[in-house]
Amino acid sequence: MAVNLKRPDLLRPVPGIELATGSAGLRASGDDDLALITLPHGSQAAGVFTQSGFSAAPVHIARRHLELCAPRALLINAGNANAGTGQRGLEDALGLCAEAASLLDLDSESILPFSTGVIGQFLPTKAIRSALRPLPDKLSEEAWLEAAAAIMTTDTVVKGMSLDFQFQGQSRTVTGIAKGSGMICPNMATMLAFIATDAPVGVADLSMFLHAVVARTFNRITVDGDTSTNDACLLISTSDPGASLTPDTADWQILYDQFEQVALYLAQAIIRDAEGATKFISIQVDTGHNEDECLQVAYAIAHSPLVKTAAFGSNLNWGRLLMAIGRAGCHYFDPDTVVIYLGDLCVFRQGRVAEDYQEDEGARLMALDELKIRVSLGQGESQATIWTSDLSCEYVRINSEYLT
Amino acid sequence: MAVNLKRPDLLRPVPGIELATGSAGLRASGDDDLALITLPHGSQAAGVFTQSGFSAAPVHIARRHLELCAPRALLINAGNANAGTGQRGLEDALGLCAEAASLLDLDSESILPFSTGVIGQFLPTKAIRSALRPLPDKLSEEAWLEAAAAIMTTDTVVKGMSLDFQFQGQSRTVTGIAKGSGMICPNMATMLAFIATDAPVGVADLSMFLHAVVARTFNRITVDGDTSTNDACLLISTSDPGASLTPDTADWQILYDQFEQVALYLAQAIIRDAEGATKFISIQVDTGHNEDECLQVAYAIAHSPLVKTAAFGSNLNWGRLLMAIGRAGCHYFDPDTVVIYLGDLCVFRQGRVAEDYQEDEGARLMALDELKIRVSLGQGESQATIWTSDLSCEYVRINSEYLT
Repeated sequence: MAVNLKRPDLLRPVPGIELATGSAGLRASGDDDLALITLPHGSQAAGVFTQSGFSAAPVHIARRHLELCAPRALLINAGNANAGTGQRGLEDALGLCAEAASLLDLDSESILPFSTGVIGQFLPTKAIRSALRPLPDKLSEEAWLEAAAAIMTTDTVVKGMSLDFQFQGQSRTVTGIAKGSGMICPNMATMLAFIATDAPVGVADLSMFLHAVVARTFNRITVDGDTSTNDACLLISTSDPGASLTPDTADWQILYDQFEQVALYLAQAIIRDAEGATKFISIQVDTGHNEDECLQVAYAIAHSPLVKTAAFGSNLNWGRLLMAIGRAGCHYFDPDTVVIYLGDLCVFRQGRVAEDYQEDEGARLMALDELKIRVSLGQGESQATIWTSDLSCEYVRINSEYLT
Repeated sequence: MAVNLKRPDLLRPVPGIELATGSAGLRASGDDDLALITLPHGSQAAGVFTQSGFSAAPVHIARRHLELCAPRALLINAGNANAGTGQRGLEDALGLCAEAASLLDLDSESILPFSTGVIGQFLPTKAIRSALRPLPDKLSEEAWLEAAAAIMTTDTVVKGMSLDFQFQGQSRTVTGIAKGSGMICPNMATMLAFIATDAPVGVADLSMFLHAVVARTFNRITVDGDTSTNDACLLISTSDPGASLTPDTADWQILYDQFEQVALYLAQAIIRDAEGATKFISIQVDTGHNEDECLQVAYAIAHSPLVKTAAFGSNLNWGRLLMAIGRAGCHYFDPDTVVIYLGDLCVFRQGRVAEDYQEDEGARLMALDELKIRVSLGQGESQATIWTSDLSCEYVRINSEYLT
């Protein structure tokens, strides 16, 4: 049911990064559920993780390992989140890092573990170890698509993107993969996403790029307002230039643009493939007094089950937009300066339905599978855009049956 | 589909208060959609109203009239919210107050208008005037049930409650009616609710009782996290004692208990009759550091589409409870001190599934139509309880078709 989202035809290798996948039997289908990704010596990485109070065991371990040294391998399993598993969950994640380290002749601390899937069950470590052992011999620079498939849970489409670009006179690549479909409302973090480049970028710059990019991409999407226990996003460079970039120079801007483009594609892909989604909805709030109030209004709309079910039914129901905007709790707010657009059609102005509003045109726009809602607050110069999906019967069916 | 909720057999008259209903054709069914309620001379009333930035025209007028004088009549229509209707909406509401005042030989300012229904359409004032004209001759003390029915929108069950009680040596009555089923997440206010007593209570005391009671009843329920543009709750006494009660005395406590009991019944009735509801869910959060953090956790659970769909599917899915608790953003939080109960069954303790948790018993409790979720935070002495419904396919169906 994904909205205008296709499996990428190919994902370009990032020289030096190798991948392999296998099955530990965590999926009923028997499809691959385990991915091993190795990074060449000299790689740098920055990560952001879920702010959940119930962060999963692998989130704790990956965060700690990332502080200790530059990572050399990522071990990712789908089908089991290893969250809500207490001390044993931490020991299981550490044990798997040790196993991978031994197979790859690396230090345990250079392995970053990631898990996604059902919360509250212990990892089947024996099955994962068995599936892991053959992977080092299968490693290949060409296996990005297979890895993107192996990390999926309720996703229906593989999510990945590659860009080629020129940087300091050389041709470079950035490739990113992500998974996510439900329990999506990233908070300073995201679902699982891994973005890598062979352009030389130091760890401090990677961290700065990652936070800036995530704030405008992964942290601007919501399916259900529910933040996962396992969100993580990693930005990797395979070589260290030994010096920091100067912000806002041409080089800096080139890298920022590549990273943002890939992250934005992946973030929007998650919404396009949201559980039960039939519509891809962008919500732009502008002329706000400040960015926070624009985001407040945008999320009040995006989280409203009444707006989301109306979108599913292709009903404009702009009264529900009023309701959501009205309850957003803006300090700088005047109902008479609010203007609401659907696409380019003005729907509401001066406290009432727009004089020139045409119901036929509203119905036509609502029937599309890509909706653009724009709210002008008339209070200042700030703006923000977020992306969300509709709320369908299929969402309820999936989530009343699926064991998260 | 209401969960364990029946139409009340009878609602007791409050001496001096008379009611009449009629049809202005706002419902497709032709059922009554207009209620006129007159209050005897000397009545006092306190009101709370929606905090929405897009408060409806009747909310503005009722709030202003209540400041000007003691009210003598309420005019309520269902089927049209008169919200998002700008200046014309205000004029329409004022015009109907003037019409009612003229029919009843009262001042316009002593009429309080209330509307509920579709947002964004102008009131059909001509039809309402025609339906209003015969009502003064039909006024009766016995028509509370008819009035409760006339104010319903997507409600499926009439909501009302009466209590008899002894107060200062006399037998007194309190009767309340309410409507509400969707767009329910009251904020300092509620849907439409009217509670009246013949016990003598002054306006300052009524206001204090109302705010105290609403904070623990109507402001503790949520269906969809969506706050209406038209919420209003009124507490009425038909006689003025001429002096204030002393808080926490026996008389004060008697009145507080009656008002709270009626308000709690009505608030819970709204949840039992929530759009598409198949479960009535109470969420108690205790041993919190403060009440606000208990409420944060309770609402994070109550607003989670993943928790609500799991409840609809009768799946315990306690991982989703962890997710919701984890994202609530509590400052005083330790995942290892959190204990989760379903009814009396301990599900989660010390960071993992409880050692003695029995899956069979969990499944049995989840299959009931009344669920009790209790979360102990282990951080202090505070507690809070709220009530919510599940999220069913029927909710999506109703709201993808219904024009709010």
